[in-house]
Amino acid sequence: MSSQGCGEVAEQLVSLDEPFGFASGAILPRLQIAYETYGELDAQRTNAILVCHALSGHHHAAGVRDSAPEPIGWWDNMIGPGKPIDTNRFFVVSSNNIGGCNGSSGPSSLNPETGKPYGRDFPQTRVEDWVEGQRLLADHLGIKRFAAVVGGSIGGMQALLWALRHPERVGAAVVIACPPRLTSQNIAFNEIARQAIIRDPNYAAGDYYDDEPPRRGLAVARMLGHVTYLSDADMERKFGRAQRSSGDGTGKIFQVESYLRHQGNKFSDRFDANTYLLMTRALDAFDPAADAGGDLIAALAPASAQFLVVSFEHDWRFPPERCRELVASLVAAGKLVSYAQLDAPGGHDAFLMDDPHYHAAVRGFLQRQVPA
Amino acid sequence: MSSQGCGEVAEQLVSLDEPFGFASGAILPRLQIAYETYGELDAQRTNAILVCHALSGHHHAAGVRDSAPEPIGWWDNMIGPGKPIDTNRFFVVSSNNIGGCNGSSGPSSLNPETGKPYGRDFPQTRVEDWVEGQRLLADHLGIKRFAAVVGGSIGGMQALLWALRHPERVGAAVVIACPPRLTSQNIAFNEIARQAIIRDPNYAAGDYYDDEPPRRGLAVARMLGHVTYLSDADMERKFGRAQRSSGDGTGKIFQVESYLRHQGNKFSDRFDANTYLLMTRALDAFDPAADAGGDLIAALAPASAQFLVVSFEHDWRFPPERCRELVASLVAAGKLVSYAQLDAPGGHDAFLMDDPHYHAAVRGFLQRQVPA
Repeated sequence: MSSQGCGEVAEQLVSLDEPFGFASGAILPRLQIAYETYGELDAQRTNAILVCHALSGHHHAAGVRDSAPEPIGWWDNMIGPGKPIDTNRFFVVSSNNIGGCNGSSGPSSLNPETGKPYGRDFPQTRVEDWVEGQRLLADHLGIKRFAAVVGGSIGGMQALLWALRHPERVGAAVVIACPPRLTSQNIAFNEIARQAIIRDPNYAAGDYYDDEPPRRGLAVARMLGHVTYLSDADMERKFGRAQRSSGDGTGKIFQVESYLRHQGNKFSDRFDANTYLLMTRALDAFDPAADAGGDLIAALAPASAQFLVVSFEHDWRFPPERCRELVASLVAAGKLVSYAQLDAPGGHDAFLMDDPHYHAAVRGFLQRQVPA
Repeated sequence: MSSQGCGEVAEQLVSLDEPFGFASGAILPRLQIAYETYGELDAQRTNAILVCHALSGHHHAAGVRDSAPEPIGWWDNMIGPGKPIDTNRFFVVSSNNIGGCNGSSGPSSLNPETGKPYGRDFPQTRVEDWVEGQRLLADHLGIKRFAAVVGGSIGGMQALLWALRHPERVGAAVVIACPPRLTSQNIAFNEIARQAIIRDPNYAAGDYYDDEPPRRGLAVARMLGHVTYLSDADMERKFGRAQRSSGDGTGKIFQVESYLRHQGNKFSDRFDANTYLLMTRALDAFDPAADAGGDLIAALAPASAQFLVVSFEHDWRFPPERCRELVASLVAAGKLVSYAQLDAPGGHDAFLMDDPHYHAAVRGFLQRQVPA
């Protein structure tokens, strides 16, 4: 029934006993990947869609799982029976990225050589490594080709890279609110977040797992990230200059202050600081054009997928002009590309919301992708 | 000679032995104000211009003083013989704001009651208090009326408030890159900066003067502020995605990372964290319309000054639409107002740079303000 969503879902874990080679050359002796699936894989195994998560995301994308950071999946409005990524039709795979802190191997995982968490010894991961981990998972599940790979923000980077690295395994790529590379300003915000973490004395050069973690720095990092996900207009509508009691006897504070402190503290209770560092560095490094001498059009040549690119008018983190740069290069490279630039409420995080035009675009595009 | 600038300048200090009453009702038994002056006060004392500094500024606005945080004044391109604020014609007064850390009474000043720095016991200051301190300084200097009060960013807020609170003492107000109040997003960035400081363990609830100050938090706060002063395009031109050695054996980092770390560290060596907290809170609280029930036009009624409002196209901290809100309200209030919206390089910090159109606007406007 379309109104029920995916219902109770279960986390699955796969251990890949082959050593995993990172793009950097580093080797992990054993890789674990945590994932969830929604819907049924058809007999021909051709109806699979891979969903890729963003910076602070995880594999619990849809349905209800009480052991997840939030019981309801982060993209539950998008994925489910009758929803734009329709589980009546598609088998959806969602995995936690390598380097994450929600079940896949990452800095907080035990290093079998030392019996302690990897900490800063966990290899710096790139978007390429996430795609490679997802490829291994696809092999494990017997999926030779995804009908589509879908993601917003860094998830979009993974969808794009899938189309470039494994053209024979991707029917369509849905790249949402995602630029072809970060600007200097984007990198600057990530670096400030990292400095907030690294300069927290509890960070202890990344080896904090036996002690108090650098929650204060991570909370500041999250507050900063959070502001870049919202538009100025959204914040003005939501908070304006409204005030409230500080709750600690120091008089009144602006509601937006209280909101940010709450968001920062909540995040720092659930997320690993080393993962935050690693993921922001992966984001900064992402630059597929660099592999083609800076020529984005040439870099896009291998892709054979159909593309849907979506951008949001009020997204100032990765604004429409950055997404149009990707679209123009895809067109110039001779690819089939649909582009939707939407005046949806929300800034960058509009990609998580259920704007009807946005959902209609994703739904319409995916309906065309008939499982072969 | 117009090419020589103000030359060597001297800091001056005045102690006002009357208790100083803050807008909050708090009292300081004794107020000290540090200031500099450039040019000569004429016999009628009618050629004075007050220059107001911004968040991290101080009273060393022009000329050379080796004991200042930077030997060359921060607005040396604007103030001097033959410059837009022409010291051949005007007598320029520049004071350190109350609550500052460069000579005027502030959190790092000794509390005569305890013999220790005030720390967090220093009263929370508002823009109104800065104007009141400047009024006392004007009285001390025998200046009954300023030909103009000039400032950018928070300096502009002071210029505006002077025109509203002391209409008989202000001939003209030059309000540059300055909104009539902060948005929720503006406040959010300030709050993240404050949290970076407050969550630094060295902050010690503001009583850190006998120990290591919260340099790490202050550096992160400065990095964040700094990014909001630059435009995306500026940063892209200046740094792009260029990389350099990290200098610590950890491989390459983006140049923008190295730049931000350097800016943060440099600032945290010279600035007081309590002052940073106090000044950002004063900025957040600024809202002259609130005194008139939220009606900005009504709030502007008392002013009799001529206004010049300047905004910069690429300023995303206080963008032109925010400045035009002030202009439209001034016009609606029946005030004489000139408005220049400039496509100068630089973001918010364009107000510190020497764009020829910008300087021509200030020069032209001030030339009309004939000392009476």
